[in-house]
Amino acid sequence: MNSRKRDFPTEKARQYLEPGTIVLLSSHCRGQNNIMTLGWHTMLEFSPSLLGCVIAANNHSFSLVQDSGECVINLPTTDLTDKVVKIGNSHGAEVDKFQENDLTPLKAERVSAPLIAECHACFECRLFDDQLVDRYNFFIFEIVKSHVAARPKHPQTLHYTGEGVFMVAGNIISRRGQFKPEML
Amino acid sequence: MNSRKRDFPTEKARQYLEPGTIVLLSSHCRGQNNIMTLGWHTMLEFSPSLLGCVIAANNHSFSLVQDSGECVINLPTTDLTDKVVKIGNSHGAEVDKFQENDLTPLKAERVSAPLIAECHACFECRLFDDQLVDRYNFFIFEIVKSHVAARPKHPQTLHYTGEGVFMVAGNIISRRGQFKPEML
Repeated sequence: MNSRKRDFPTEKARQYLEPGTIVLLSSHCRGQNNIMTLGWHTMLEFSPSLLGCVIAANNHSFSLVQDSGECVINLPTTDLTDKVVKIGNSHGAEVDKFQENDLTPLKAERVSAPLIAECHACFECRLFDDQLVDRYNFFIFEIVKSHVAARPKHPQTLHYTGEGVFMVAGNIISRRGQFKPEML
Repeated sequence: MNSRKRDFPTEKARQYLEPGTIVLLSSHCRGQNNIMTLGWHTMLEFSPSLLGCVIAANNHSFSLVQDSGECVINLPTTDLTDKVVKIGNSHGAEVDKFQENDLTPLKAERVSAPLIAECHACFECRLFDDQLVDRYNFFIFEIVKSHVAARPKHPQTLHYTGEGVFMVAGNIISRRGQFKPEML
């Protein structure tokens, strides 16, 4: 495992995934790896830790994920902006996106899809429910293992707003004193 | 209609909703208005403009939305942080959240739920598909009308990371020159 990352409680995956940040979905099937840029996802449940993702059917990753039933959701930070854009602008059927973007695939623990070493966090996922795949391309995954870098505490994540423009997570506002666990 | 807002192409709602920002969901049923703070949502389709939202069943809004089949998704900015927290920490069955938080309900155009005047953007929604409501509390809405303030161009939105901590949308990174519409 990448030594820069620590185990992370899977039921707290929301801390990284809920803000709707842009993620890189890595997949593997029949000897082939792929990566896609993805921005349409939402947490659905804490435990099991469920994440819903839209993977448009014209993406090469769609069939890799559907056939393997697995993927890794990787969290890139602003230093990877140009790779995020390049990955989003290319087709996995034509190029090896790891090689093209000088990214390092690492062996995951519980799925065949590779982790992306350069990302701040990696969430290993298994397909949990595919009933909305045909109608909405909406895959419901269970996060079965989470890896998160120890620092920085507040990674500079990318939040896509369409048409090539990203917002960057900036300042932090804490209302921790008013946090009511029972209200989530 | 609130004069500070302009019509906005509904199929571009992603510009505001995709970054997973915290939203305020307003609803109306049988003479009662309510507001809830919501962070688990994802765009699902451009046209019709579909948005999936998790509304936990213990929220008062759950039944208002289920019974009326309508809501408004309102986008608050950082100046509303304390109201966002207070709304998330209180129960609509007990208090009038508009009155309690000094927020102004405005008549919507196509739904009975009120717009929140103080928010940067308001998206009128109709229930489109409820097949995942029982299992995941996941409502699929169609955005039928969108209202967005003319400025600021880049509103300071709130992105919840759990446990009372919000990230704020900060800098903008533009890769507009590399935007390929066919890749979305």
